[in-house]
Amino acid sequence: MSEWQRECERIAAVDWSAAAAVQARLDNLTKPRGSLGRLEELARRMVVVTGREHPGVTDKVVFVMAADHGVAAEGVSAFPSEVTTQMVLNFLNGGAGINVLARQAGARVVVGDVGVAGDLPRHPELYSAKVARGTANMAAGPAMSRAQAECAVEAGMRIFAAEYAKGIDLVATGEMGIANTTAASAVTAAVTGRAAREVTGRGTGIDDRALEHKISVVQRALQVNRPDGRDGFDVLAKVGGFEIGGLAGVILAAAARRVPVLVDGFISGAAALIACAIEPKAVDYLIAAHRSVERGHAVLLDHLGLEPLLDLGLRLGEGTGAALAFHLVEAGVRILGEMATFASAGVSDRSDG
Amino acid sequence: MSEWQRECERIAAVDWSAAAAVQARLDNLTKPRGSLGRLEELARRMVVVTGREHPGVTDKVVFVMAADHGVAAEGVSAFPSEVTTQMVLNFLNGGAGINVLARQAGARVVVGDVGVAGDLPRHPELYSAKVARGTANMAAGPAMSRAQAECAVEAGMRIFAAEYAKGIDLVATGEMGIANTTAASAVTAAVTGRAAREVTGRGTGIDDRALEHKISVVQRALQVNRPDGRDGFDVLAKVGGFEIGGLAGVILAAAARRVPVLVDGFISGAAALIACAIEPKAVDYLIAAHRSVERGHAVLLDHLGLEPLLDLGLRLGEGTGAALAFHLVEAGVRILGEMATFASAGVSDRSDG
Repeated sequence: MSEWQRECERIAAVDWSAAAAVQARLDNLTKPRGSLGRLEELARRMVVVTGREHPGVTDKVVFVMAADHGVAAEGVSAFPSEVTTQMVLNFLNGGAGINVLARQAGARVVVGDVGVAGDLPRHPELYSAKVARGTANMAAGPAMSRAQAECAVEAGMRIFAAEYAKGIDLVATGEMGIANTTAASAVTAAVTGRAAREVTGRGTGIDDRALEHKISVVQRALQVNRPDGRDGFDVLAKVGGFEIGGLAGVILAAAARRVPVLVDGFISGAAALIACAIEPKAVDYLIAAHRSVERGHAVLLDHLGLEPLLDLGLRLGEGTGAALAFHLVEAGVRILGEMATFASAGVSDRSDG
Repeated sequence: MSEWQRECERIAAVDWSAAAAVQARLDNLTKPRGSLGRLEELARRMVVVTGREHPGVTDKVVFVMAADHGVAAEGVSAFPSEVTTQMVLNFLNGGAGINVLARQAGARVVVGDVGVAGDLPRHPELYSAKVARGTANMAAGPAMSRAQAECAVEAGMRIFAAEYAKGIDLVATGEMGIANTTAASAVTAAVTGRAAREVTGRGTGIDDRALEHKISVVQRALQVNRPDGRDGFDVLAKVGGFEIGGLAGVILAAAARRVPVLVDGFISGAAALIACAIEPKAVDYLIAAHRSVERGHAVLLDHLGLEPLLDLGLRLGEGTGAALAFHLVEAGVRILGEMATFASAGVSDRSDG
C-alpha cells in the first residue's frame, strides 16, 4: 500500500449525531436559541469533527503550496511566470498579504515548494519538495505523470505531518502559482462536468479578449487530455498543478488526524475537489472560508455542498480568505466555552417568562 | 444652542476625493490590483474618514446601551422584561456573547444604562444615565417626550466623550432592551415609509401568531403617534427607545471626532437612521458590520446606502456582529500598512510582464 493510501485509510466518517449535544450546550447560554447563527454551526462542527468538548484554536497554520504551470506559456495570466518564485521569497520575508493576515490571526505560515521553476534559498519556513520545475503545458498534453501526481499529494501529506508534530488545531490552505486559475478551472470542469466557460474567470485580472483565449485554452486542455472526473489522480495529473496536489495532500492528512481545514478560494477549492475525489469522507473536515470572485468557485462549492463564511470580493489566493476566517471559527469555539448559562448568570429563559 | 446641536455642528462632510491616493498606495502592494476586495475598501475608508495616513485600530470600544420598553406590555417578545436588567448584570460580569467577542477582538465593553427599569449596582464599566425607568407604551401614545429624546441622545454623546478621553480608534454599537426590535421596526417604518409588515420580524424568536400580533402593535404605534420620518427626534420620541437614542448620540459624537463606527444589527441600524435623520453627514462615518436575520434590517441598510460586511445569520444584537467585524477593518488597515510593495519585494508588476 502506498503512502497516500495509508493516509487516506485513516480518514474516518464524521459522526454528526454528536452535534445535538453541542447544540444543547449552546442553548443553555444566555442568548435566544440559534441567535448566533453560523458561529453556533462552527462551534458544533469543531466539537464534532475534532471529538473534543473544548476544541483548541491556538495552533493555527496556513499551508501555502507553490508551483509553476507550463500552461502559462499560453499567455493566460496577467503576470509573468517568474512572479511565482518572487512571491515565495516575499512570503519568506513576511511581506505578502497572507503574512499580514496570518500575523493578525496569530497563525504561522508554512510554505511548500512543490514545483516552483526557479531556485529558492533554504529557509526555516520553507519545505523544499519540488516534484519538478513546473508542470508541462496541459494544453498540449498531461500536466504531469500519474506518479508525479502521487508525489505531489504525498509531499503535501509529509509537510502537514512535520508541522503537526509542532501542534496544529486548525488549518488554512493557500497557494501561489502563476496561471493556476487556469488549472483550477480545468480541474473544476473535469470533476463537476460543467463547461469551461462556466468555470473560467479573470484570475489576477485579464481583459475580455484574454478571457476568451483562457477559456479556449481550458477547453483544449480538456479535449487533449480527457480526464476522468471520478479519478482524482487522473484529473490532477492531466490538468492540475503540483501545488494543487500538495494542498490535496494537506487536506487529506489533516482529515486523517481530525483537524478541520479552512479552504481558501478557487485554487484551494480545486484541491478540495481532488482530495474528495480521492477520499470522499474528507469533505466533512472542510470549512469553506469565503466566496471568491472567480466564477468557477461557486460551482465547486455547490459540488462539495459547502456554504462559504465570508463574501468580501477577494481574489488574491495565498490563503488570505482562509486566514481571515480563523477569527470566525475561533469566535464560535469561544462562544461555546466562555459564555455564561441562563442558570449561572441568573437570567430568565423564555420558558420562565 | 443645545448640547446635541453643538455636537452635530462639529460633524464635517467626508472628502472622498482623498480615496484615490489611498488606492494608489494599495495598488503598489504585491497583489493584483483590487484583489483584496472589501479589505481595500475598508483601508480607503479608514484613511479618508480619520484623515490619518496610518489609522489606529488599537483602541476599540463597544458601546452597549440598555433600556426597557413600555411596549413589552403588549406581549411582543419571547422574553420577559426583567431580562434587560439581568443581561446588563451579565455584561458587567463578562458572561454575555458581546463580552466573549469583544475579548477576542481586544476591545473594551462600555455599558450605558439610559433607561433600564430595574436598579443596577455601581460598576466601573457602567455609565448610569437613566432618562426614565423604561419608555411608555408606544402603542397607546408617545414612548417618551421630545425632551427625553434629546436627553437620551445627549447621554450617549456624553458617554462617548468620557470614553474618548481614554482613547478610541474604532467604535462598535450594541444594545440590550427587551421588546426593542418592536421599536426598531416602528422607527424603520417611520423613516423609510415602508409598511409595518415589511420591517417587522421575529426578534428573539416568536412564532407566526405572535409575529402577526407584533405587526399589529407596530401599526398601532404608527397610527396613534404619526411620527414625522424626516424629524429624527420626533421619530425617536414617539416610537423609539432610550437605548436607540443613546446609540444615536454615540454615533453623532463619534462622527464629530472623525471616529468610524461599526453599526451592528437591526436596533443599532434604527439608531443610525435616527442619527442620520438628525445630521445626514453622519452616514459617511458608518460601516455596516453585518446583515441581521431581522427583515427590517435590509430595508434600513438600503435606505442608508450601506452594504454589510458579514452575513452569518446573527440575530443576537448586543453589538456581537459589530465586534466580529473589528477584525475585518483591522485587516484592511494592516494590509495597507504592512504589505511589501512590488519595488521593495522585487516582484514584477503586470506592466513589466
